[in-house]
Amino acid sequence: MEHNIKLTVAYDGAAYHGFQRQQNAMTVQQVLEEKLAKLFGHPLKVSGAARTDAGVHAYGQVINLYTSSAIPTENIPMAARGYLPDDIVVKVAEDVPSGFHARFAAKSKIYIYRIYCGKIPDPFLRHYVWHHNNSPSIPDMAAAIGIIIGEHDFSAFRGAGGPPGIPIRTIYNADCRQSGRFIEFEFWGSGFLYHMVRNFVGTLLEVGYGRLTLEEFNTVLAGRDRKLAGRTAPPQGLYLKEVIY
Amino acid sequence: MEHNIKLTVAYDGAAYHGFQRQQNAMTVQQVLEEKLAKLFGHPLKVSGAARTDAGVHAYGQVINLYTSSAIPTENIPMAARGYLPDDIVVKVAEDVPSGFHARFAAKSKIYIYRIYCGKIPDPFLRHYVWHHNNSPSIPDMAAAIGIIIGEHDFSAFRGAGGPPGIPIRTIYNADCRQSGRFIEFEFWGSGFLYHMVRNFVGTLLEVGYGRLTLEEFNTVLAGRDRKLAGRTAPPQGLYLKEVIY
Repeated sequence: MEHNIKLTVAYDGAAYHGFQRQQNAMTVQQVLEEKLAKLFGHPLKVSGAARTDAGVHAYGQVINLYTSSAIPTENIPMAARGYLPDDIVVKVAEDVPSGFHARFAAKSKIYIYRIYCGKIPDPFLRHYVWHHNNSPSIPDMAAAIGIIIGEHDFSAFRGAGGPPGIPIRTIYNADCRQSGRFIEFEFWGSGFLYHMVRNFVGTLLEVGYGRLTLEEFNTVLAGRDRKLAGRTAPPQGLYLKEVIY
Repeated sequence: MEHNIKLTVAYDGAAYHGFQRQQNAMTVQQVLEEKLAKLFGHPLKVSGAARTDAGVHAYGQVINLYTSSAIPTENIPMAARGYLPDDIVVKVAEDVPSGFHARFAAKSKIYIYRIYCGKIPDPFLRHYVWHHNNSPSIPDMAAAIGIIIGEHDFSAFRGAGGPPGIPIRTIYNADCRQSGRFIEFEFWGSGFLYHMVRNFVGTLLEVGYGRLTLEEFNTVLAGRDRKLAGRTAPPQGLYLKEVIY
C-alpha cells in the first residue's frame, strides 16, 4: 500500500543549481528523485518545503514522497546513505498522513546567514560564508533588524524573477550575533519571498557599515520599492535551518 | 635585489593532488608557483616545509621563495588574493635571511586529525573529517597516544612509497580530545615519516574500538613492522597546523 513519508534532508548546495528541478542543470530535487527511486525500487516525485537557490545550503529541508516500498521508515536514513552522494544526507524519516505536503503544510521556516570578517579569507569557508574584509556594526544591524519583525509588505526585499503572489509575510523573530570573526543572522518567518533573506542581509549590512541610517532602513521597508534596498547577499552564506509544521 | 620571502599559507586540499609538483596532476605547489609568478612578474620556485598528500589540508604550511619584486612584503597577502584561487590563501608574509629554507630550517611541525562520530554523516564535512558511525573510547586512545611520545623508531607507522631515510623521530607531544561529535588528535613532532600521522590515527582507533590492547599497541611500536599497525586513516581529516622554526 502506498504511504506518505516525510524526510528531513541536509545538503551542501555548493555543487547544485538549487533545489528545484531544472532542464540542463543538476539540482538537489533531481538527485533525490533519481537516487531514492533506486532505493525504493520505483519512480517517485519529491515535494520540497523550500526552493533554495543555487549554492544555498540546508540543514533541515523537508520533503515528502509516496512509496509502496516495505523498507521500514526508521531504516531510510541509513539505507539512503548507500544511494545518495555525500553532499546530500537524509537525517530523519517519518510516516505522515497521506494528505501531508511538505510545502503547503509548512507553518514557518528558519533561515540563517553567515558572514566571516577578516582581511584574509578562510579557504575552508569559501562555499559556506560571505567574506567581508571589514566588520560591520552589530548594534546598528540589530537595531535595524527589529524593524522587519512583524507582519509587513516586504516588496522592498523581493527579488525580481521569483513567482508572483501577495508580498505580505510575518517575521516572528530575527536577530544577528557575532562570535569571533563570524556574524550570524537568523530569520524565522511565516514564509519568505524570492531572495528575501539575501536582500535583508545585503540591506542590513548597509546599515552596519553606516551607509544607511535606521530611519532610511525604515523608509526602505515602508517604500516597498526594491530599488531602495541594498544588494542581494551572495548565496553561499545562506542555510535553510528548519521547517516548522 | 633578490630577497627571500617566507609565506604562511592555508589551503583546502580537497581539489589537489597534494602539495608537491607532479606530472599531469594539479598540486598546491604548482598553483603557487604559477600564480605568484604573475604577482611578482617573474618565474619562481617555492619550497614547502611539508609534502602534504592528496586531499590533506593546511592551516599553516610554510614556503619560501626568492624574488626581485619591489612589492612591500606586508602587502603580499592581500595582493596574492587577486591571483590565487579561493582555496589557497597567503596568511602572512615575512622577509627572511637569504639562507632560510622552509623545509630544512623547520624545527618541528604540528598536525591535527579530525574525526566526526555519528550515525548520519554531516554533508558539510565530507572533505574535512573522517566519518565514523560509532564513537571510539577517548580514554583508551589517550592512554595509547602516551606511548608514542618521545624519541622512537617509527618504522611501524611508516607508509610504503615515501622517501627513504632514518625512521627515528621525536614526538614532543600528542593528545586526543572529544568535543561533541568531534574527536581531534594533535601531534607535535620533530618530523613525520610518510603517512605517519594517518597510520597513528588508524592504529589508535583500533585501540579506541577495543580491537587492540595497550600492550599490543606497545608491541606494534616496538616491533617496527608496518604490517602490525592499523590501517592508514584517509587524508581528508588531516591538517598541517603549524611549522615551527
